[in-house]
Amino acid sequence: MRILGIDPGTAITGYGVIESVQGEMRALTFGAIRTPPGQDLPTRLQTIYQQVSALVAEWRPSTAAVEELFFSRNARTAMAVGHARGVTLLALADAGLGVAEYTPTAVKLALTGYGQADKAQIQEMVRLLLGLAQAPAPDDAADALAVAICHLNSARLAAMADGEDTG
Amino acid sequence: MRILGIDPGTAITGYGVIESVQGEMRALTFGAIRTPPGQDLPTRLQTIYQQVSALVAEWRPSTAAVEELFFSRNARTAMAVGHARGVTLLALADAGLGVAEYTPTAVKLALTGYGQADKAQIQEMVRLLLGLAQAPAPDDAADALAVAICHLNSARLAAMADGEDTG
Repeated sequence: MRILGIDPGTAITGYGVIESVQGEMRALTFGAIRTPPGQDLPTRLQTIYQQVSALVAEWRPSTAAVEELFFSRNARTAMAVGHARGVTLLALADAGLGVAEYTPTAVKLALTGYGQADKAQIQEMVRLLLGLAQAPAPDDAADALAVAICHLNSARLAAMADGEDTG
Repeated sequence: MRILGIDPGTAITGYGVIESVQGEMRALTFGAIRTPPGQDLPTRLQTIYQQVSALVAEWRPSTAAVEELFFSRNARTAMAVGHARGVTLLALADAGLGVAEYTPTAVKLALTGYGQADKAQIQEMVRLLLGLAQAPAPDDAADALAVAICHLNSARLAAMADGEDTG
């Protein structure tokens, strides 16, 4: 199972591709799509769409995961994230990928067993779970890997539940 | 000059195409792109992208205009509008169209000379300026026509300023 996690933003969109082979989890790639602040918004959104499409074409994930954000510090931030999130979801759908959405609390719970974990704790868990020497940078890439891991764990739990003898 | 005005939303995206011929303004088409509430978000965003692209292909506007929204009743609404707005801007950019953005206050000022005009006043002005028998429905189509008219007036004023003898 290969999962593309994405943390969308207009200026910086984090991404990470993870794979699970016989219970071992590893990161195939991670990083960030950046767009210049001086550029007009439609052009920045084109870049995000094209780069997300290119990631799917290169890494051929079987599914994608994105954080589900219902609130934000303010409406202006929410709108800006919404722009990037909209074209990201479109790129994934156009590539034929299913998209799972998880709340920030669900991601924290899946990684640390604690829904109020802070950013540093999440990053350290991402590092440990993927066997990386250092915490992935930038933060947006770590967040993208975190939601991908959350989806992988969720898929594993669902598989275990399916396999249980409920008689 | 032919202008496509758009009022983006995930559930309903209003649109309107207007044209100015020798100072006469008229509506070529207007309406709304609707997506079913039960459908998953990526599919709804695909519909919006495809329908906006189809409008551009059919009506061949020379430019587009969209409302610039910096705030909203709440962040959740802003995020939802942002999703639709993001894929709308992407569709327009992919079609090679320039996009002008106007604040709601600028639209109200351009149509009624009063930045605090209410929705009913705006709709009545849209109806009068375009010579329509009834106010355009739904509201989202009227809002889309309003921002297109705002852009047309703005372009006219700019042309007049350019032509002035400033000596």
